[in-house]
Amino acid sequence: MSNTFLSPIVIEPLVRAALCEDLGRAGDITTNALVPDGSDAETALVARQDGVIAGIDAALLAFRLMDGSIDATVLQPDGNGVSAGETIARICGPAKAILSAERVALNFLCHLSGIATATASLVYAVRGYRARICCTRKTTPGLRGLEKYAVRVGGGLNHRFGLDDAVLIKDNHVAIAGGIRPAVERVRAVIGHLVKVEVEVDTLDQLKEVLKLNVDAVLLDNMSVDDLRRAVVMVDRRIVTEASGGVTRESAPLIAASGVDLISVGWLTHSAVALDIGLDHLGRV
Amino acid sequence: MSNTFLSPIVIEPLVRAALCEDLGRAGDITTNALVPDGSDAETALVARQDGVIAGIDAALLAFRLMDGSIDATVLQPDGNGVSAGETIARICGPAKAILSAERVALNFLCHLSGIATATASLVYAVRGYRARICCTRKTTPGLRGLEKYAVRVGGGLNHRFGLDDAVLIKDNHVAIAGGIRPAVERVRAVIGHLVKVEVEVDTLDQLKEVLKLNVDAVLLDNMSVDDLRRAVVMVDRRIVTEASGGVTRESAPLIAASGVDLISVGWLTHSAVALDIGLDHLGRV
Amino acid sequence: MSNTFLSPIVIEPLVRAALCEDLGRAGDITTNALVPDGSDAETALVARQDGVIAGIDAALLAFRLMDGSIDATVLQPDGNGVSAGETIARICGPAKAILSAERVALNFLCHLSGIATATASLVYAVRGYRARICCTRKTTPGLRGLEKYAVRVGGGLNHRFGLDDAVLIKDNHVAIAGGIRPAVERVRAVIGHLVKVEVEVDTLDQLKEVLKLNVDAVLLDNMSVDDLRRAVVMVDRRIVTEASGGVTRESAPLIAASGVDLISVGWLTHSAVALDIGLDHLGRV
Amino acid sequence: MSNTFLSPIVIEPLVRAALCEDLGRAGDITTNALVPDGSDAETALVARQDGVIAGIDAALLAFRLMDGSIDATVLQPDGNGVSAGETIARICGPAKAILSAERVALNFLCHLSGIATATASLVYAVRGYRARICCTRKTTPGLRGLEKYAVRVGGGLNHRFGLDDAVLIKDNHVAIAGGIRPAVERVRAVIGHLVKVEVEVDTLDQLKEVLKLNVDAVLLDNMSVDDLRRAVVMVDRRIVTEASGGVTRESAPLIAASGVDLISVGWLTHSAVALDIGLDHLGRV
Amino acid sequence: MSNTFLSPIVIEPLVRAALCEDLGRAGDITTNALVPDGSDAETALVARQDGVIAGIDAALLAFRLMDGSIDATVLQPDGNGVSAGETIARICGPAKAILSAERVALNFLCHLSGIATATASLVYAVRGYRARICCTRKTTPGLRGLEKYAVRVGGGLNHRFGLDDAVLIKDNHVAIAGGIRPAVERVRAVIGHLVKVEVEVDTLDQLKEVLKLNVDAVLLDNMSVDDLRRAVVMVDRRIVTEASGGVTRESAPLIAASGVDLISVGWLTHSAVALDIGLDHLGRV
Amino acid sequence: MSNTFLSPIVIEPLVRAALCEDLGRAGDITTNALVPDGSDAETALVARQDGVIAGIDAALLAFRLMDGSIDATVLQPDGNGVSAGETIARICGPAKAILSAERVALNFLCHLSGIATATASLVYAVRGYRARICCTRKTTPGLRGLEKYAVRVGGGLNHRFGLDDAVLIKDNHVAIAGGIRPAVERVRAVIGHLVKVEVEVDTLDQLKEVLKLNVDAVLLDNMSVDDLRRAVVMVDRRIVTEASGGVTRESAPLIAASGVDLISVGWLTHSAVALDIGLDHLGRV
Repeated sequence: MSNTFLSPIVIEPLVRAALCEDLGRAGDITTNALVPDGSDAETALVARQDGVIAGIDAALLAFRLMDGSIDATVLQPDGNGVSAGETIARICGPAKAILSAERVALNFLCHLSGIATATASLVYAVRGYRARICCTRKTTPGLRGLEKYAVRVGGGLNHRFGLDDAVLIKDNHVAIAGGIRPAVERVRAVIGHLVKVEVEVDTLDQLKEVLKLNVDAVLLDNMSVDDLRRAVVMVDRRIVTEASGGVTRESAPLIAASGVDLISVGWLTHSAVALDIGLDHLGRV
Repeated sequence: MSNTFLSPIVIEPLVRAALCEDLGRAGDITTNALVPDGSDAETALVARQDGVIAGIDAALLAFRLMDGSIDATVLQPDGNGVSAGETIARICGPAKAILSAERVALNFLCHLSGIATATASLVYAVRGYRARICCTRKTTPGLRGLEKYAVRVGGGLNHRFGLDDAVLIKDNHVAIAGGIRPAVERVRAVIGHLVKVEVEVDTLDQLKEVLKLNVDAVLLDNMSVDDLRRAVVMVDRRIVTEASGGVTRESAPLIAASGVDLISVGWLTHSAVALDIGLDHLGRV
Repeated sequence: MSNTFLSPIVIEPLVRAALCEDLGRAGDITTNALVPDGSDAETALVARQDGVIAGIDAALLAFRLMDGSIDATVLQPDGNGVSAGETIARICGPAKAILSAERVALNFLCHLSGIATATASLVYAVRGYRARICCTRKTTPGLRGLEKYAVRVGGGLNHRFGLDDAVLIKDNHVAIAGGIRPAVERVRAVIGHLVKVEVEVDTLDQLKEVLKLNVDAVLLDNMSVDDLRRAVVMVDRRIVTEASGGVTRESAPLIAASGVDLISVGWLTHSAVALDIGLDHLGRV
Repeated sequence: MSNTFLSPIVIEPLVRAALCEDLGRAGDITTNALVPDGSDAETALVARQDGVIAGIDAALLAFRLMDGSIDATVLQPDGNGVSAGETIARICGPAKAILSAERVALNFLCHLSGIATATASLVYAVRGYRARICCTRKTTPGLRGLEKYAVRVGGGLNHRFGLDDAVLIKDNHVAIAGGIRPAVERVRAVIGHLVKVEVEVDTLDQLKEVLKLNVDAVLLDNMSVDDLRRAVVMVDRRIVTEASGGVTRESAPLIAASGVDLISVGWLTHSAVALDIGLDHLGRV
Repeated sequence: MSNTFLSPIVIEPLVRAALCEDLGRAGDITTNALVPDGSDAETALVARQDGVIAGIDAALLAFRLMDGSIDATVLQPDGNGVSAGETIARICGPAKAILSAERVALNFLCHLSGIATATASLVYAVRGYRARICCTRKTTPGLRGLEKYAVRVGGGLNHRFGLDDAVLIKDNHVAIAGGIRPAVERVRAVIGHLVKVEVEVDTLDQLKEVLKLNVDAVLLDNMSVDDLRRAVVMVDRRIVTEASGGVTRESAPLIAASGVDLISVGWLTHSAVALDIGLDHLGRV
Repeated sequence: MSNTFLSPIVIEPLVRAALCEDLGRAGDITTNALVPDGSDAETALVARQDGVIAGIDAALLAFRLMDGSIDATVLQPDGNGVSAGETIARICGPAKAILSAERVALNFLCHLSGIATATASLVYAVRGYRARICCTRKTTPGLRGLEKYAVRVGGGLNHRFGLDDAVLIKDNHVAIAGGIRPAVERVRAVIGHLVKVEVEVDTLDQLKEVLKLNVDAVLLDNMSVDDLRRAVVMVDRRIVTEASGGVTRESAPLIAASGVDLISVGWLTHSAVALDIGLDHLGRV
């Protein structure tokens, strides 16, 4: 049981679009010219690097949408750590379809596993601390649901999925509203009872103001570790504290040591390095 | 005049989808609660890092699809190098729409500028050599056209856009066809006169066989620099030579020194670090 | 300034689809046969009943998507109460396009105004009490965003927009998880910091258990007014209390008198009576 | 054998869209956190009110699109009358998918069954008379095909499905064409041989004029029952007579007694009360 | 005033799809490499053959969707006959966009003008007779609305637009229903009052049976001209008579001489020869 | 093994759209009223003319998307020549679904088989010559991939699939670039190594200029057979020669006799006559 489930109905349109993007108007002209219709292949998705797997369902869907008779056995499901050389899944069936779907399947799998791997490495970096690792809305256009899923697979938590599922009051909102207090009050008057409110602050003075208001969380943006520590003391666990800005594998444990509840990291989704995974052809049946 | 033009009709659906992905079912609940309808804002897209800009049209389209009355002045068009702190474009108009479109606009711009910047840095690394830098089909699902555009903006060339616009015979194809010669001949018999044929080889022996056939280009996969140099001598410019595998900013000039025509690099599109760009709010009108 | 803003980019696809649904494959064959191309018309959207207007933007978009030169003046914007006979907006322009878009424009406007009117009447019924009126996920397929917008326009609050923007633990979840406590704890371990947790209870005993846990809101389902009153006392404003089940214009003030924070009502979105609005043709220009 | 068949290919996109609307970007976060993957459930769609069932195919499709292994047994197919407490269908399979699809399935089923029930009650109200009950184009945007299907299921007939499948000349068309005669003649000159022509009239004088022309049906709009009776005598079954305006369960038999062929009712599709149906969880397998 | 109007909202998705189909993932690589951004062109759509124009709106939309600043002046609107060499419309604006949209614009215009021209030539062939020329459902997938529009532009009438807008009882239906009479009666019992019923017959005996029933039209399929003449006498204008099968420009007047009301022709939409139209470049501004 | 494979994932959206286009909002009202749900039918796709089959997969998909239980046996797969009267495939299953899908299945099959048949007849006309028959971008909007597939099935080769998969420099490009040489050089500087360059010429002088440049193919447009012969001599097989303009079954062998490599023909895709194929009902099971 986990919280990382991804409904197939939601990813199917993305995988279909990616296959059509790669097939173009003429299809896989190399494979179509060279691979006979009846030819079967046994292949394996194999990790070329150590990492954490995410997106195997999207990869398998790419194969199955190309040909419903392709058979897959998953050895390392999403969330599993793999070492270089380990087989993630066996893919068997019509050689033509496997070859034609290979790149799209890998593009999903490598991208999402890259995000899960980066997340897991940050989660490991802050082990022993209270802090959880968290993503942002800095995602690749069109892939937000998938990328935030990969963050969960890597052991992270998800921040807002969009502009509509929580209130986050930033400096510009505060400026327009004429202060933190009027901003929070105006928002509270209109939002539903299941919507949380977070406020972004740059200084401890702003934090002091936030703590007088009905606010669920505070985003401590680009603060020094010292200030973070002071902020945590001031908040005293009454609301959630989130640190952001300048997070690296090196700085993460220092930030976590301040006692914040969350560390949010944009590059997990916008700049994680893809995990190197390949499709090995084991032979023809 | 350039070859980097991108038809708006092609990117509009992607930008619309990204905006709807971020707005969700309830829209920007923070901004809607806090920003009055008549309020205008003057903002600027500002580089926070040095880099090469790509994707400004997608970014502007995000603002304009949100509100057609938003006005933009581009100071640094696609292809321009910028320094940290430089203004890329001024965006003025309804504050509500600008705030709601901000993240989507930046997600396109930072992602594509990251690719252009990485490409430009490799192009610079091989300056003085014959070799051109080239992308692959290892792209983010759904964004292939945009990402390959960013590679061109960065000074690179595009490899195949999909499985359908050129023949690339890989080891598995060769195995199924029973050799390089039968593979090439079978392909030649059926493809149109405007389709080029490239063959992937791992060894100089395979290259020798390729050179006897009607082939337009050869992909020298994961060869040592020494072997690449020998390959270039063997080919003697009769067909295009492309090197791939293990390309970094450090290895690129060594590979280029072998005399190959092209160096193709998967990570330009699958793992480039996003360029840090922000939206500064200059004030309210 | 309000929280009822609806991004045009989100409603445009719905309005386009509705126009195409009505035009079919042959278009408005009556109008096309009878109305000359140059003919202009002056028309008015007129209320035939008292009510609250919602959806005027969708209605205007129907006219403008049919012909971009149609001109509209809104006299009674969304949220305004109107009396039978009052003009809501004037629509002037090509007669052909106005006649062809009329039914689709009205179908949106009457449906959404019906929801806003029903909401406003319940809001009025509980005036003076703490309770706010709230909708549910019992919406018309495809129109959730619009219908929840209409609830806001009528003075109500929105409950969850979907399965993904808050946790609502119902009896079946509790049964599968093996109790309320394990359910809440399991959920808390995986959700993001901006996601709220509500639990549905049928009895005061269940409520007692809920109050020991880290829960943001409790849904008091189908309880008697007496039990609701007791529940409110037990909760003592520590978490949000929501009553649901059997809410009518008559029962609403009785339920509100119990002191609950929210009264949620399914029929606001699935069974509200459409507000009668027509398009009067004032003349031809 | 019946005329109420609905092609699955036509409803599938609507059900997919409704599921995605409810799942949002993160999916069913409650169920995903609490329900194990292997857990099965036995559930039943149960009527909470008396009524006529319509839309069971759409409801089952919601479950099956969520998980193809869900099994359904329909006990009360579309068109059957049910009493409160009766089981409509049994739904068995993965608990996760059943819980996640439940609301969407019910939203279709309750909405369409509400329309069928309302139609059936009007059909019953005019039993013994010649008059058939008929719907209009006042439907919910996007759901016209489904709603008109529900009217058929309830025993009603369908009026036009759109602007393109028959000619209906209204007062504005007559005004622009310069009279009923020129309007009818102009239309007859251009329409295909399978398109029928109906004219809307408010007075018996207009009816007299219509009867001299090549018209298939006349819409007697908002006439008194006395005038309807006179109209039926004047028409003498030469063309179809349709009455509209102010139709309620009480007025319907009075209108039907006038001898008209059809009574068309807008509120069947725009304001019918949803039939209360729930999903009972019978246990876990 | 005419019946040939086509709503832009209906054709826009088709034109967008056609442009994207032609632009592919990389766009117009020739034009983008060679035509500077600021360069304007004056061009003209010129007929290379005599014919009747149809589809000019689709052609202009192709240009305008590519670049909204393209200006067009239509000299020969839809329905006009043109001679080889005549200018149909002038298209001025950015050279890049005009060159990139040229082929798509012509593909619509030549295809639809071909259908209009073929229709007009059949209409001319039967001039002086009662018979009108009519199309069928044998259309190009995806283009039915446009092709039937072109038939109207050429002076023809439209038969059914789909399976849903009229009843056409064919031999297989009759066989399954157990005879013409039960088929007609079963249909009449369930269809709306605005739906017409046509029956296909092969023999005069079948026609005799049809004439005893409540049928609106009869399709005389593949009958000899002699039998058609006898059929017309038998029918005596009580219902509409439609002849089909083996219609050519030569046979059409012979068939028309039988006195039938309609002659339906499949090849108008499935096999009409495209009208030769080109885009002449008049110069650069 | 062949190059004519067409991915089902690419054609499915086209077939779905065509079915929905034909079913409209009410579905097949004739069949739904007359054919009982349990009734099965045995039918056969039968050629009414001699020709070459193409598109059987699209036709079968139309049946199967309507009802997944329809069973098909293909006797004459794509590429086979058939004589009038020959059975192409047997289609068995629910009578309702077969009747409702019949027209759409045939519309795809007749259209594509018409193109394959026309191509095959031209291929036959030039047998014994070097010349291959080739299509153009003059295709039906939305069907380019399918139509070019049908050309391959008929034995032809494909020219460009779109503006993006090869460079074709035409007269207007040359004019804007200031000559053939600058045009070719400018293009060569920016295109990828797998993109070929073809130049269109009208005269032998232009050809002479082309032969000095790095060009892969030359399009000899509307040249006399004498000039074509001279051109072939001048080129001497160094680059590909393509003749276009005025190609008919009669002129094709004369053109081929000039020795050109390719003859491209627009009317194969825009004006081929549909092959007459019908669905025979063999009986009811």
